[in-house]
Amino acid sequence: MQTKLVRPEEPGANMRPTDTTEWARFMTDDEYYPFLIKKNIRPAIWRWRDLEPRLSAIAKDKLRRADRRFVALVNSDTGETGGVLPSLFLGIQIINPGEHIVPHRHNSYALYHILRGAGFSIVGDHKFEWSRGDTFACSPWASHEHFNSGDEPAIQYVVQDMPARAIERNLMWEEPIGRMFHMVEGNLPHSD
Amino acid sequence: MQTKLVRPEEPGANMRPTDTTEWARFMTDDEYYPFLIKKNIRPAIWRWRDLEPRLSAIAKDKLRRADRRFVALVNSDTGETGGVLPSLFLGIQIINPGEHIVPHRHNSYALYHILRGAGFSIVGDHKFEWSRGDTFACSPWASHEHFNSGDEPAIQYVVQDMPARAIERNLMWEEPIGRMFHMVEGNLPHSD
Amino acid sequence: MQTKLVRPEEPGANMRPTDTTEWARFMTDDEYYPFLIKKNIRPAIWRWRDLEPRLSAIAKDKLRRADRRFVALVNSDTGETGGVLPSLFLGIQIINPGEHIVPHRHNSYALYHILRGAGFSIVGDHKFEWSRGDTFACSPWASHEHFNSGDEPAIQYVVQDMPARAIERNLMWEEPIGRMFHMVEGNLPHSD
Amino acid sequence: MQTKLVRPEEPGANMRPTDTTEWARFMTDDEYYPFLIKKNIRPAIWRWRDLEPRLSAIAKDKLRRADRRFVALVNSDTGETGGVLPSLFLGIQIINPGEHIVPHRHNSYALYHILRGAGFSIVGDHKFEWSRGDTFACSPWASHEHFNSGDEPAIQYVVQDMPARAIERNLMWEEPIGRMFHMVEGNLPHSD
Repeated sequence: MQTKLVRPEEPGANMRPTDTTEWARFMTDDEYYPFLIKKNIRPAIWRWRDLEPRLSAIAKDKLRRADRRFVALVNSDTGETGGVLPSLFLGIQIINPGEHIVPHRHNSYALYHILRGAGFSIVGDHKFEWSRGDTFACSPWASHEHFNSGDEPAIQYVVQDMPARAIERNLMWEEPIGRMFHMVEGNLPHSD
Repeated sequence: MQTKLVRPEEPGANMRPTDTTEWARFMTDDEYYPFLIKKNIRPAIWRWRDLEPRLSAIAKDKLRRADRRFVALVNSDTGETGGVLPSLFLGIQIINPGEHIVPHRHNSYALYHILRGAGFSIVGDHKFEWSRGDTFACSPWASHEHFNSGDEPAIQYVVQDMPARAIERNLMWEEPIGRMFHMVEGNLPHSD
Repeated sequence: MQTKLVRPEEPGANMRPTDTTEWARFMTDDEYYPFLIKKNIRPAIWRWRDLEPRLSAIAKDKLRRADRRFVALVNSDTGETGGVLPSLFLGIQIINPGEHIVPHRHNSYALYHILRGAGFSIVGDHKFEWSRGDTFACSPWASHEHFNSGDEPAIQYVVQDMPARAIERNLMWEEPIGRMFHMVEGNLPHSD
Repeated sequence: MQTKLVRPEEPGANMRPTDTTEWARFMTDDEYYPFLIKKNIRPAIWRWRDLEPRLSAIAKDKLRRADRRFVALVNSDTGETGGVLPSLFLGIQIINPGEHIVPHRHNSYALYHILRGAGFSIVGDHKFEWSRGDTFACSPWASHEHFNSGDEPAIQYVVQDMPARAIERNLMWEEPIGRMFHMVEGNLPHSD
């Protein structure tokens, strides 16, 4: 670059230009296709008989301030995306009577189906009381919190598009409400 | 265009060029943003008490050759995408004892959770026997079929990314096996 | 719901529960498929001879505080998604000598190719000086601003996934830096 | 499973059930989040001065039957997705005078901008003649082929959503026309 007189109003006047970014690569057709094409995902099954003891185990742990209480069902074939399917998260959440999953929000959606128990959730401006068989949807960026107001553990079957948002690096999070961040390496929710 | 002598080996030698495609528009910044920005999706709830009679009703219909037996839960706010959430399909499927949902496949995935009953599914090369509480995943393009081998109606909670594939116009389908097609206007599965 | 004594520590103690959300629908298989399947997208072409006068026209307008100077190429067949293709935005941006597109960021990515002119962009921690033929990528949530430091108008060919983020309602924006918001109905960038 | 008399009409009567799929894992909240969260993508730049010699080099190779002639711009930070950005492919294609990129199609879209030269493309039912500055869009599943009918090499700037389709394992391909396949491990286009 030739030297140039920087006008004072010019943005970034004190920044040194980056000429080369070593992580920017060139690949030929012959190199690119084999690199792009992925392992096929094998069909998979998760048995209730295997899941139930894991739910019972986590239900005994003390609930931390902003924790969730879920067991994630992950197909190893999904590799980096880390989901039950390549762009999908499935978590089974157990909430003990009187427990409160405190409010937070994210730009991934969440779809809840009640497998057991009764309680309520506050989703955006709505308070949904729920019991077995009910389904409710939390839209992207709607704040949500859950409360078990019943007498037995409540179990929710929860589907989210977190893996799609994470792999595309467009996952945004707010937790606790008031602390918003881009969910990439170095940032984790409820890392108290 | 000036006239040009067409060499016989040239592809499309007999095709008349398209100069203008009227559906190709230009928009300024001021026009584009209001057009792009969408209605927010309100949180929504679907009650089991409302779903159950609908499942009972469709279970009484005769099962057609390649039909499914589902009730879809749709949030009207999703507009054109037509899902329980903007890129997600949720269908509750009921299968009577002895009924067979015949094989088909698509490049959208399907995630099954058994709410009631027992049976089996053939997913790709695997035969999964299932009962209440089990979860299994059908990967994109894996052929799948379902059979109720029990004595009571089986109910599956089924999540798919059909709306994402449909809105992006990359939904592919094969039904019956051997008839593959691009699922856009004019093509429907099991349209017997 | 039967009346229940609300414990003072219970969240949402003063909220009235929502029993029914009218926008939550049920659809049968026969209703759902025709609703889901979309118009095919026709191939389309945008000519430079039609684009250039539009760029010249917007280049004569005064640049407002946080404006962009782009012409968007939109295929009408994309309907609600509003893109050059169903999940893709293409804008051609023209920047006059000395003009500054001020910093902002969003969780959609942006890919720039320089068609004409010279200048620099500050993208996250990097200052990239560019001229014709160079390509640079702005990752999701990286702040970016552009400056034409040359003597002729600069033209950038800019691809973004804004339509995908908007239709899924997971588009997040910060503009000016410090004002972060969920980009849905009611919120627009640079609405001065 | 207890033994059961298989009725002859039962599907999969001769298949042995799969009880366990070892690639189906369970993870707790504490294990899942660190696994899900990805490296941030650094902004990157690809210079024309580095790209041009690579284009000249591939232009000297003999064009194979169904080959493309592109150089892909890849950001190493995108990891498994392998794109210029996490869900996006960018390839610069060079076509010599008289060369023909033969017809094929895929459910990923392709967006072409002409940087240099003149020729035509047949996209679905349309024949588009193009020269520098023109932009045209090939919709998912539209067949496309390109021909350089001019006197100098033609250069196209081509954006596709191949990485998104590949990572989600919903990429479908037809090449040559008549041979359709699911683009996962084991299948490659033009592998002559």
